[in-house]
Amino acid sequence: MFEKLPIALRTDYLRPDVTDEMISARREQIELADHLLRSRKCRGAAFTGWLHPDGILNQEELVRIVETADRLRQESDVLLLIGIGGSYLGARAVIEALADEPERVAYAGTNISAAYHARLRAKLEGKRVAINVVSKSGTTIEPAIALRLMKDLASYNAERLIVVTADAKKGALRKLADEEGYESFVVPSDIGGRYSVLSAVGLLPIAYAGIDINKLREGAARCAELCRSTDPLSNPAYYYAVARNLLLEQGLVIELLAVFEPHLHYLAEWWKQLFGESHGKERTGVFPSSALYTTDLHSLGQYVQEGRRDLFETFIEIRDGGPALVVPHQEDDADQLNFIADKPNETERTLNYVNRVAYEATALAHRHGGVPNMTVVVEKLDAYALGALLYFFEIACAVGGIMLGVNPFDQPGVEAYKRNMSEILGRPGYTQRPLESGKARYVTF
Amino acid sequence: MFEKLPIALRTDYLRPDVTDEMISARREQIELADHLLRSRKCRGAAFTGWLHPDGILNQEELVRIVETADRLRQESDVLLLIGIGGSYLGARAVIEALADEPERVAYAGTNISAAYHARLRAKLEGKRVAINVVSKSGTTIEPAIALRLMKDLASYNAERLIVVTADAKKGALRKLADEEGYESFVVPSDIGGRYSVLSAVGLLPIAYAGIDINKLREGAARCAELCRSTDPLSNPAYYYAVARNLLLEQGLVIELLAVFEPHLHYLAEWWKQLFGESHGKERTGVFPSSALYTTDLHSLGQYVQEGRRDLFETFIEIRDGGPALVVPHQEDDADQLNFIADKPNETERTLNYVNRVAYEATALAHRHGGVPNMTVVVEKLDAYALGALLYFFEIACAVGGIMLGVNPFDQPGVEAYKRNMSEILGRPGYTQRPLESGKARYVTF
Repeated sequence: MFEKLPIALRTDYLRPDVTDEMISARREQIELADHLLRSRKCRGAAFTGWLHPDGILNQEELVRIVETADRLRQESDVLLLIGIGGSYLGARAVIEALADEPERVAYAGTNISAAYHARLRAKLEGKRVAINVVSKSGTTIEPAIALRLMKDLASYNAERLIVVTADAKKGALRKLADEEGYESFVVPSDIGGRYSVLSAVGLLPIAYAGIDINKLREGAARCAELCRSTDPLSNPAYYYAVARNLLLEQGLVIELLAVFEPHLHYLAEWWKQLFGESHGKERTGVFPSSALYTTDLHSLGQYVQEGRRDLFETFIEIRDGGPALVVPHQEDDADQLNFIADKPNETERTLNYVNRVAYEATALAHRHGGVPNMTVVVEKLDAYALGALLYFFEIACAVGGIMLGVNPFDQPGVEAYKRNMSEILGRPGYTQRPLESGKARYVTF
Repeated sequence: MFEKLPIALRTDYLRPDVTDEMISARREQIELADHLLRSRKCRGAAFTGWLHPDGILNQEELVRIVETADRLRQESDVLLLIGIGGSYLGARAVIEALADEPERVAYAGTNISAAYHARLRAKLEGKRVAINVVSKSGTTIEPAIALRLMKDLASYNAERLIVVTADAKKGALRKLADEEGYESFVVPSDIGGRYSVLSAVGLLPIAYAGIDINKLREGAARCAELCRSTDPLSNPAYYYAVARNLLLEQGLVIELLAVFEPHLHYLAEWWKQLFGESHGKERTGVFPSSALYTTDLHSLGQYVQEGRRDLFETFIEIRDGGPALVVPHQEDDADQLNFIADKPNETERTLNYVNRVAYEATALAHRHGGVPNMTVVVEKLDAYALGALLYFFEIACAVGGIMLGVNPFDQPGVEAYKRNMSEILGRPGYTQRPLESGKARYVTF
C-alpha cells in the first residue's frame, strides 16, 4: 500500500454517500482544474510558487537556513518565533508533531493578550532567547506589538540572536533587517502564508527544532511528483479534494478533521487555515473544524454520533504511532484491562494497537451514525511522511478550490476586522470610529 | 451594568436576525422549561444536582478538599490529573484561565497515544508527582491505561500522594481506594460529568492550583440566584439559550465560540463538551466549534467573514484583561505602532485596550459579513466571575436543551465507539470483531 509514498486514503466509509464512480465522473473537472493550476491560468496563479517544493529554495539558501538554525541552537535555549497565521502555523504544526523537545520553540505575535505576554516572559526568564520574526510587511499589528514587547530578551546580542524572515525587498521588517544588519531570509513573493511552510518561513524554525528539513522537502517533492496523475483513483489527494466537494454539494457543510495523537493538534490548526482561508469565500466552502480523539469522543463525540447530520469526518491515522509502550499487567485487574495486557500477541498489548482500534471503532460507529468519513493513513510519522502530507493537503486544497470556483490563494475577508481596528484605534489615514458605537445593547442581571 | 454580577450579554449584533421581541415571544416556552427543570420533571431530572451550586458539597467535604489540596501542594511539584471528558475538562478550564502556575497540573487519561505518554514521562522526570485519578467507574479505558502507566511516579509514597475521586459506593476505583487506603472524594451520583466542575471532581485539582474555590462557588451560587428570573430580558443566561435556539431554527447550524485570550482555550473546550454532549442528539443541536482570536482571524477568519452563512458567533470579552502592559514607544516607528504608543490617554496604550478594539472590530466586521453574533461580557476574570460564567453556561444549556426537546443530561451516543472497541479488542463478554474488516478500501499513489 505504501510502495510509492507512506500515505494512502481510506474511502470505504464514504459509501454510499460517495463512491469511486461518483469520483471518477468528475474526471474532466479534475483535469481542467489541474490544467489551470499547472499552466498558471487559474485565479490567483501568481501565488502558486509552492507547487514545486524543490524549487522554492536554492541550495545556497538551504545551506544558510541549516547553518543559521544550528548556530542559533548553540547560542540559545529557546527560539521565540514571532508571527501570525501562515507565518507560524506551518512551523508549529511540524515542530509539535516531530521535535524531540518542542518546548525549545516558543511563540508570540499570535494574540494581543496582556496575560499571555506576562506568562511568556515568566517562562523565558533566565533563558537565552533567540528570536525569529516572520512577517511579510512588518506592520501586521500582532507580531509588531510582540516584537516591541519581547525584543529586549535578545538585545544583549541582537545582531546574532535576532533573525528576520520578510519580503525580499520592501516593507518595514526588511528595512529593519538591513539597518540593523540582522541575518535575514525571504518570504517568497509567489507563495501565500498558508502555503509557505516549505519556504524559509517554516524551515528555519523547523530546523532549529532539530528536524531534518531535507527529508521534509523530499517527502513533499515526491508527493508532488505522484500528484501529477489526474486519475483520482491513483491520486488520493485529488480523490480527497473531489470527495469533500461532493459531500458539500450534498449539504454536508462541516468537515471535522480528527486525529488520535495530541501532538497533531497544530497540524489540524494548519489544515483549518489552509482550507478555511482558501475555500471560505463567495459564500461557499466547507466549514473546517477539528477534534482530538479519543478525548473529544467524551465531548463532541456525542454530537458527531447523534446530532444533526450536517457533517463529514476526515481522520488522520498514524499506523506506527511511536514508542512501543504496552499496557502493563496488574495483579488485581480491578480496572479490567488484563484482557489487553495478557494478549498472546505482544503487538496487541501496545498503546499503538489500542489507539488503532480506537480509530477503527470510531470510524465505524460514526459511519453507522450517518457520518460519512475517510481517512488519510500515514505509515509512520517522520519528516519525510509529514512533508508528503503537507503537500497532499496543499494540492488537494488548491485543486479543490479551483473546482469550487473560488480563488484558493487570496484572503480578501481578512482585511475587514483590520480596517475596523485601524479606524477605532485612529490609525493615521483612517476615519476615526468610536469603540462604543452607542448602539451597544446589553442584557444584564 | 455589572451591579449584580460581573457578567452581561451584548445582543445588538444579533439584529436583525434575533430581536428582543423574538426572544420575549418565547417567554412561555422558557417558563415551561424552567419549571420542568426546577421541579425535576424534565427528562434526565435525576442529574440536576448541579442546579444549586452551594448544595453540591457540605462544609466538611469542602474543608477536606482544601486541606488535601494544600497538603498535596506541599508534598509535590506537580499534580497529575488522570481523567477524561467531564472528569478533567472543567478543572482544566478553570486552572488554565486563573492559575499563576498552570503548569503545576499535568494531564493524562485523555488519549491512548504512546508518544504523549512518553513525552509526559520525560516532562515529569525528577519531579515529585501527586496523582488525582477521577473516574466514576474506574474502568473507562483511557484513564485506566494512564493510571497503570503512570502510577509508579507516586508509588514511593502512594498512600499520601494518590488521591481518588470516584463513585461513592461502587466501581473499580472506589474499591481500589478502599483497599489501598487512598484519600478519596466522591463523584456525585446526581451530576453528569460535564456539569461536575463545582463538585470534588473539579474543585480538588482547582484548589491544588492555588485558586480560591470558595470564590468560584460563590460566583456560581450568586448566578444561580439571579437565574431564577424567567424574564429573558433580565436573565442573560436564558436570553442566550433562546437566541441560539432561534438561530438554529433559522438554519444557522454552527456556533463559533470565540475568545481573545489564549488561556481561555480550555474554557472553550469545556463549553464544547457541555453543549455538544447535551444538545447533540436526536438529529438536532447546534454544532459547537471554537476559535482563539486574533490568531484565528488569520485562519478561520476568512471563512467567518465570507464563507457559507451557516454560522453564528458568541464572543467572550474580558473587559479588564490582566496586567497593564503598554505598547512601548520606539524611536524609528518602522512598524508604525507609535500612533498607539503615543496616545495621550494611557489606557489606550495598553494591550488590554487594543485587544478590546480587536474584539469590537471583529464583532462589527462579522455582523457586516452576515454573521449574527452576541457577546458574553465579563468585567474581570477572577474566580468569582468564572464561577458565575460556568453556571451561566450550565443553566443556559439545560434550559435550552429542554426547549429543544432533548434530554440535556444523558450521552447515549458515547457508547457506540466504546462498544466497537470492546468487540475489536475482544473484551470478555463481547463478540469478537476483526480490526481490518476486509471491506477496507484504500486509494494509493
